[in-house]
Amino acid sequence: MSVTHATGYAVFDPKDYLNFKLQKYELEPSADDRVTVAVECCGVCGSDHHTISGGWGPWETKFVVTGHEVIGKVVEVGKAVKEFKVGQRVGVGAQVGSCGKCKACKTGLENYCVQPVHGYNTKWYDNKEHQGGYSTHVRAQELFVFPIPEGLKSTDAASMMCAGITTFSPLVRNGAGPGKKVGVVGLGGLGHYAVLFGKALGAEVTVFSRSDAKKADALKMGADRFIATENKGFEKDLKRDLDLIIITASSSSLPLDELLSCLDIEKKCVFVGMPEEGLSNVRSQTLSDNAVSLSSSHLGNNAELRQMLQLAADKGIKPWVTVMPMKDAAKAIKAVEDNSVRYRSVLTQDIEA
Amino acid sequence: MSVTHATGYAVFDPKDYLNFKLQKYELEPSADDRVTVAVECCGVCGSDHHTISGGWGPWETKFVVTGHEVIGKVVEVGKAVKEFKVGQRVGVGAQVGSCGKCKACKTGLENYCVQPVHGYNTKWYDNKEHQGGYSTHVRAQELFVFPIPEGLKSTDAASMMCAGITTFSPLVRNGAGPGKKVGVVGLGGLGHYAVLFGKALGAEVTVFSRSDAKKADALKMGADRFIATENKGFEKDLKRDLDLIIITASSSSLPLDELLSCLDIEKKCVFVGMPEEGLSNVRSQTLSDNAVSLSSSHLGNNAELRQMLQLAADKGIKPWVTVMPMKDAAKAIKAVEDNSVRYRSVLTQDIEA
Repeated sequence: MSVTHATGYAVFDPKDYLNFKLQKYELEPSADDRVTVAVECCGVCGSDHHTISGGWGPWETKFVVTGHEVIGKVVEVGKAVKEFKVGQRVGVGAQVGSCGKCKACKTGLENYCVQPVHGYNTKWYDNKEHQGGYSTHVRAQELFVFPIPEGLKSTDAASMMCAGITTFSPLVRNGAGPGKKVGVVGLGGLGHYAVLFGKALGAEVTVFSRSDAKKADALKMGADRFIATENKGFEKDLKRDLDLIIITASSSSLPLDELLSCLDIEKKCVFVGMPEEGLSNVRSQTLSDNAVSLSSSHLGNNAELRQMLQLAADKGIKPWVTVMPMKDAAKAIKAVEDNSVRYRSVLTQDIEA
Repeated sequence: MSVTHATGYAVFDPKDYLNFKLQKYELEPSADDRVTVAVECCGVCGSDHHTISGGWGPWETKFVVTGHEVIGKVVEVGKAVKEFKVGQRVGVGAQVGSCGKCKACKTGLENYCVQPVHGYNTKWYDNKEHQGGYSTHVRAQELFVFPIPEGLKSTDAASMMCAGITTFSPLVRNGAGPGKKVGVVGLGGLGHYAVLFGKALGAEVTVFSRSDAKKADALKMGADRFIATENKGFEKDLKRDLDLIIITASSSSLPLDELLSCLDIEKKCVFVGMPEEGLSNVRSQTLSDNAVSLSSSHLGNNAELRQMLQLAADKGIKPWVTVMPMKDAAKAIKAVEDNSVRYRSVLTQDIEA
């Protein structure tokens, strides 16, 4: 019997974005390439807060059910689905569809598809609304569904589907590994994954954070070095020291000139935090001193996501997560907003079928 | 008999920067690694204007003799100089010295030396002042002196020493060549070289300029396509079309979001214009849409400069230059300031020995 509806914790007004209400809604119709997943748990991402509060602009859909770090069980597969079977444990991240026709799709970079279908607050190509994982069910194209290795707990795997891959992809695409030095700016949900995966890949990791408040945590996560950027001149001993910087802080007032001076010649600084106000002013002279690049990155492709999950299982990577029932969504969003989450919240299913 | 002094057209006050006066001054002492050059001609660079007007900050030296696009004859060589002989025609660009000890120097990237000695308004490691090529003589370390191929006219080669290499280096380092599409933003002294060298390297070149005013010139230089960015939506047909963008415009109000959308996934935009005010605000979302990088570049290394001069000689590359006597320095600087130069001025020697 086909699944036609989901029930989720919905927000109805960006001005009242902590007011989640249970809402039943029609799922987008299934299709041959779709996998339907019964949600077991779902991570809480900074994007959820940016979206429901209207910080990233007006909504695409009438109400919003956020959540794009889903782990659950397959309950239905389309005729063309090859890999997945009903009952299998899978993950679904922040993208659920791609056009399959653009150059990005044709070259295995479906995360840069020119017409991506995001995890919620979005519409499919047929204009049907898609909502996220603070709910009973989500549906996705097979390409965006991933088997979860046995060794990984669902509540550990959940936030890897977005926060994890967002940092893992730029790490591997820019050669993080043995003998390489990686700087991680900001220690939140994304930053803590950058440390965990940077170390798991064999790189030396330096964490940059405003104050010393998170120093003990960073070192416990495996960071080799911790730098408080509120100390004037913090960059002096690090000139041209690093091979890569991942900026996970969602702030437009970072000491960019100083941070960039820590990169070796022609190396890259990748932003994965997405401040609502844009980046701070960048001096082209700063970039020319060592020919460094400022870049960004969007999620990761299918192969990178599988590689990440397997690495996490093989190395026993444990994210620092707080688990709570889904009805506490507002509490979890509040913890994102006031920056008190250490370092990711995961909501577990509590909606009666 | 050793050369001890030079005479140059000097500026004494940034507030009165068009008031060039002939001034005799002591040259920095020679040294074993130095080549002394009698100036035949010297190009006029935007940096000259930025420096004498104080736009790039207070001066390092008491007065300033600008000019870092020198062609001349060797008149003296230090004991350790291997390649050059008295009487040989050579070029000297915007860097005259490097420490020789830092990682950049040791890896053949002396243009990113941590303690570079620039072409003027600068001091050597022994604190002796160095001035530039609007003068009778300049002195440089051998590494920053280049033989000029016979086929190249001195007044054509001059501006290649800075404007030329500034665009040539990022072109070759980022793979400009057959089958690659390069965008050139801004058609001034730098931009016109980016077109000439981009085409000489075999790339397809698209010029972006504010209005259509320079369209005919761009096409005559060999550009394959010309886009006026004042036309709203100019970027629509170019989405992810280009492999590289070189921004030569010295402006902080470029339509960066639109220009970056013209780059293919994970490609680079290199700033070589250096606006005094810094770059315009960049949205990290813009960078993440196609994972492009914003970068910059500083001159080029010794090997690249030789490669450029040889390519120019082999392909008969003719820059668009206006030649005038050195006493017209103020006129040439004014033409940079009001953007009327088409596309580079070159000053020829007129100072009596």
